[in-house]
Amino acid sequence: MSFTIWFMGRPAAGKSTLAKRVENVLREQGHHIENLDGDEIRKNLYPDLGFTREDRATNNRRTAFICKLLNRNDISVVTGMITPFRDAQQQAREIIESEGEFVLVYVKCSVEEAANRDPKNLYQQAQEGKIENFTGVNHPFQEPHNPDIVVDSEAQSVDESVAYVLHRLEELGVLETEYSSEYDFDLTVEEEDEIKGRLDDLGYLDD
Amino acid sequence: MSFTIWFMGRPAAGKSTLAKRVENVLREQGHHIENLDGDEIRKNLYPDLGFTREDRATNNRRTAFICKLLNRNDISVVTGMITPFRDAQQQAREIIESEGEFVLVYVKCSVEEAANRDPKNLYQQAQEGKIENFTGVNHPFQEPHNPDIVVDSEAQSVDESVAYVLHRLEELGVLETEYSSEYDFDLTVEEEDEIKGRLDDLGYLDD
Repeated sequence: MSFTIWFMGRPAAGKSTLAKRVENVLREQGHHIENLDGDEIRKNLYPDLGFTREDRATNNRRTAFICKLLNRNDISVVTGMITPFRDAQQQAREIIESEGEFVLVYVKCSVEEAANRDPKNLYQQAQEGKIENFTGVNHPFQEPHNPDIVVDSEAQSVDESVAYVLHRLEELGVLETEYSSEYDFDLTVEEEDEIKGRLDDLGYLDD
Repeated sequence: MSFTIWFMGRPAAGKSTLAKRVENVLREQGHHIENLDGDEIRKNLYPDLGFTREDRATNNRRTAFICKLLNRNDISVVTGMITPFRDAQQQAREIIESEGEFVLVYVKCSVEEAANRDPKNLYQQAQEGKIENFTGVNHPFQEPHNPDIVVDSEAQSVDESVAYVLHRLEELGVLETEYSSEYDFDLTVEEEDEIKGRLDDLGYLDD
């Protein structure tokens, strides 16, 4: 069955990076997959939409519809969207679940750390009042109630987060194969043990 | 290679009927195909769009982007859109051709005949001034300069038009197989000869 892996989180939390990495692994595994880039979607489909609460809801709803359209054609999707409101998180699930499996991945990151990365210098501009409705600065961000997967992009490296997402996708039954045999990190045994130890410390490998 | 078959023409010209029939044949032939229904697209993606010239251009451009998105994932598309303006017809081609083959099918039908069919009673309401910007009544309709296929839904039956579209798709190299061996009309030899004769009379089988 096709699926949509919806990475949500603050600006600069690492959504696109994770989505791209997970996309690559899934493609190598033979999955038919599309990466719906939020910026591309906005530019091509909704250049008129701003960042008010209503416009964000519209953006999320329309993107969910496109995910559904792809899923019903057996194309799986990864997408990174801030999705700052719980009702939009829930609505995305409802729209997509009629055609594919929906996996909400919360990419957790504090405002401080995200502002510290800030590749486009947006947090600073928002803090200076030059950007309105900027998530986490002068616009709300609601943590999801029921994410299927949570990664902590402050505590984990990208490799660790990717590994954890794949691990969880297997646990959830979304992926059938064992990533550990399919996905070669190019790590030594010691490094793998180190990662597993850290994931364990984070409480991710408890079950 | 994936393709988009874009049926354009006046309201009630028969675009959706033809798109649905061609979709069914292609699906039976094993093509991976999506039917982008204009009403569904508008309802889910652009409920805010009206029918001004600008809104129609936006609708056409966005739909073309979705066709492109599907085509780049090897999903072929049939869609029925009025597409009343030549620049939008041309723009759809430009957007889609980067990922798939674009086939513009002009479903020709006079205003009189379309108004006569008028399943939703829209022509009458437009003529009574109850609907603004209604194509062919109080809004322009520009015949395409370079359609890849023209069917005449007044002179031809639906079966004839479907057969002709498939025939032309083969000629254009979009379809590889001979529809005549794949597509069973459930017609007798006499009926097939009759159809071929009529298509010939219409100048469709000249080449």
